[in-house]
Amino acid sequence: MIEDGVRELAKGKNFAALTTLMPGGQPQTHVMWVDCDDEHILINTEVHRRKFKNVEADPRVTVAIWNAENPYSFAEVRGRVVETVTGPDALASINALSNKYTGGDYAPEIQSERVVLKISPERQISR
Amino acid sequence: MIEDGVRELAKGKNFAALTTLMPGGQPQTHVMWVDCDDEHILINTEVHRRKFKNVEADPRVTVAIWNAENPYSFAEVRGRVVETVTGPDALASINALSNKYTGGDYAPEIQSERVVLKISPERQISR
Repeated sequence: MIEDGVRELAKGKNFAALTTLMPGGQPQTHVMWVDCDDEHILINTEVHRRKFKNVEADPRVTVAIWNAENPYSFAEVRGRVVETVTGPDALASINALSNKYTGGDYAPEIQSERVVLKISPERQISR
Repeated sequence: MIEDGVRELAKGKNFAALTTLMPGGQPQTHVMWVDCDDEHILINTEVHRRKFKNVEADPRVTVAIWNAENPYSFAEVRGRVVETVTGPDALASINALSNKYTGGDYAPEIQSERVVLKISPERQISR
């Protein structure tokens, strides 16, 4: 289950640093939109991205989420990608994220294939 | 050399996500203060921290720095810790950081041993 402190950050209009592992193990980190359900951190990316290829090869990821108003308040979730979702559900998810962060649907001219990374936590720390 | 876009973010009053590698390779990410010199990203931590033990075992790290006013503007620096500095220089560094972020010296009652991680970049991306 996602802990309350993590949920609050992931549900808010806050940003996350998603870290995946490059071949060989060097970390790759990007600043991303973020959401969660009861059991997973949710990150929406595109299937052609390096970070997606990385999690296909090694599902271990870490997500740090900070309060946009106060970055001293942040959570770290270490875990792994246990499921990926493409198709209409991934499109619905990017539109929901876009509405949270920008107030409107995602730019419809961007036709790349979206994918939701469902991240199951193994360690959750909030501070 | 640190690229201009990265330098601007590291010199500003911005926060960084420092990722180190746990034994076994799972990433660990914390939100940190950040600085740079001409050739390195600089992170100040404490010698008893897990992240310091991690870089002693595996020096590969990644630092993401975002503009505190606009997190869509961020840089990613992948590299490794090539030098660590303790003693008076590490204390001077934490006081300089504290002045940048809080406007005053670091709390003098915190007596833990500080260490500066000097991170040499192998890949720098700004967007």
